[in-house]
Amino acid sequence: MPFADPKTEMKNRQIVLQKRPEGLPKLSDFAFVESDVPQLSDGQILVKHRYLGLAPAARIRMSAGPSYAPPTPIGGVIYGQAAGLVVASKHPRFSAGEAVVVTDGGWQEYSIASSRMVAKASPQLAPLTVWLGILGVSGFTAYVGLLDVGQPKEGEVVVVSAASGAVGSLVGQIARIKGCYVVGISGGPEKCAYVVDDLKFDACVDHRNPDFGDALARACPDGIDIYFDNVGGPVRDEAFKLMKDFGRVVICGLIAEYNDEASSGPSWASLLTKRLTVRGFLTRDYVHRKQDFETDTSHWYANGQVRLRDDISHGLEQTPSAFINLLTGKNFGKAIVELDQST
Amino acid sequence: MPFADPKTEMKNRQIVLQKRPEGLPKLSDFAFVESDVPQLSDGQILVKHRYLGLAPAARIRMSAGPSYAPPTPIGGVIYGQAAGLVVASKHPRFSAGEAVVVTDGGWQEYSIASSRMVAKASPQLAPLTVWLGILGVSGFTAYVGLLDVGQPKEGEVVVVSAASGAVGSLVGQIARIKGCYVVGISGGPEKCAYVVDDLKFDACVDHRNPDFGDALARACPDGIDIYFDNVGGPVRDEAFKLMKDFGRVVICGLIAEYNDEASSGPSWASLLTKRLTVRGFLTRDYVHRKQDFETDTSHWYANGQVRLRDDISHGLEQTPSAFINLLTGKNFGKAIVELDQST
Repeated sequence: MPFADPKTEMKNRQIVLQKRPEGLPKLSDFAFVESDVPQLSDGQILVKHRYLGLAPAARIRMSAGPSYAPPTPIGGVIYGQAAGLVVASKHPRFSAGEAVVVTDGGWQEYSIASSRMVAKASPQLAPLTVWLGILGVSGFTAYVGLLDVGQPKEGEVVVVSAASGAVGSLVGQIARIKGCYVVGISGGPEKCAYVVDDLKFDACVDHRNPDFGDALARACPDGIDIYFDNVGGPVRDEAFKLMKDFGRVVICGLIAEYNDEASSGPSWASLLTKRLTVRGFLTRDYVHRKQDFETDTSHWYANGQVRLRDDISHGLEQTPSAFINLLTGKNFGKAIVELDQST
Repeated sequence: MPFADPKTEMKNRQIVLQKRPEGLPKLSDFAFVESDVPQLSDGQILVKHRYLGLAPAARIRMSAGPSYAPPTPIGGVIYGQAAGLVVASKHPRFSAGEAVVVTDGGWQEYSIASSRMVAKASPQLAPLTVWLGILGVSGFTAYVGLLDVGQPKEGEVVVVSAASGAVGSLVGQIARIKGCYVVGISGGPEKCAYVVDDLKFDACVDHRNPDFGDALARACPDGIDIYFDNVGGPVRDEAFKLMKDFGRVVICGLIAEYNDEASSGPSWASLLTKRLTVRGFLTRDYVHRKQDFETDTSHWYANGQVRLRDDISHGLEQTPSAFINLLTGKNFGKAIVELDQST
């Protein structure tokens, strides 16, 4: 399982899909391989990864079957964002030494990408990890999911699950900026305290509490206008019970269902009687909002209005276990793997 | 259970809620009572019912618990539309002899209503039963549900369940007028033949067919843009599997769930990966569309572009069993009870 000693400096250590996971992935679903870094073609950029950004969405691609993205093939590098420095470029807009984020850098040390998949990550504006979180895909997911799909109005009650996770943290803070009353759902007293004390949510409810449904109802005595769902499963079903008429449920993630957690499903009748709207979204459909996102979020970040804790693991070898921790709610903030830069 | 002989002509025979049904209502959940017709107050109208229009939504009010409408109290008259003639009026806009529809006439021979609940039903434009169906609440439900909630575009694939029922018949015909490809779902070969031959849907699939899911997939080889759901349950779950990206699911009725039919629920993950929108609606929120509905639908009706079969039972005593038939899919068209006019 551990890597062989690198033979040359330009070996690329990678984590590939060994076996399609059933339910929650196991370490044995992944394999470590080493390959040569290929030659650059015209228009391509070679990036040495310093950080991998982990996101639950990678789980979807580990399964076969039709979805919005082709599945990772067996033996293929696992999907994921990466941030690092350009080491060689055959593209006029990028030069060696520049900090960038690669949309599908993957779980590996180096990636070769077209310019379409690479974005500059100015260190003057923010450290590299922030380009994976607040100013990266987590931030963009929170931004369009809350504002475009959820359409919050001032004074509305917004509830977000996985509130101490990357997307959840940002959804709640943006909702507060928009004048909403914000209640987080998180696992355990430490995370709940962080969500209220550091992220400044109005309240946070611990879903591990056996009294969870009642506690959520007490935190939202007038019901919920927007439920931003990162988890699915039984937590979603409880939130559904509290939806107000004309409420909106934003389906962003389904961690519980990726892992086959049992759930009886939300009350379908309430969709009708409360005239709810339930909508799933993917950021790929909101490219037209990228400029607004960058303008607003970099402003909020510079002002200290949004923050996001980094949850950093060290070394490529730790990536599968960090990912499994993310799917089981053991992460606390943006799950990031920092790669050894010595080779 | 049968009525006592009427003592005077102004006795009002009524059907009241004896017991809250569990699942599918039973005949013993209803009771027959007789009361005096009360005196009219200023502004009120007394209507003698000729037809009762049955709709599954009455089932919701038979249950206790919070919903969009207060539950029918035990001993209260069952909710429902009625059409008939004004027999006395203390309202300047209505006079004896006029044909009207009473929104909540209820399962009884007479109702007393305010003008807000009474609409004129010109016999020059259409027979009384049409004012309960195409030009009544069934038509309005189909119109706003399809056009405002579903938002069909020319060339899209629209699938509607309970296609030989009142709302389903009209949804499909309006979708055809709007240039959609329309597939009905109905129970049994006779209804399916009617949906295709008489209502001119492009296809109809029998949900009683053990091969139903595959048959629906064959009828919609490119998938479904709009699924207009009148039933919920396993039929809905199969339709969900065929939704196209950005598809819309309109939740109009949940007959299967009113009756506690088992269903594993639709795939929640597909909401996300296909970016679906699922929305429940009630006609009460679309009052601003009433004028458009009347203009369009009376035009389509006059041109013969929409039709709706009347499924008529005779005599107030038949109302509970006709209603149970409606909930079990035994009706065929708009379920109407014609009342004896001799007393």
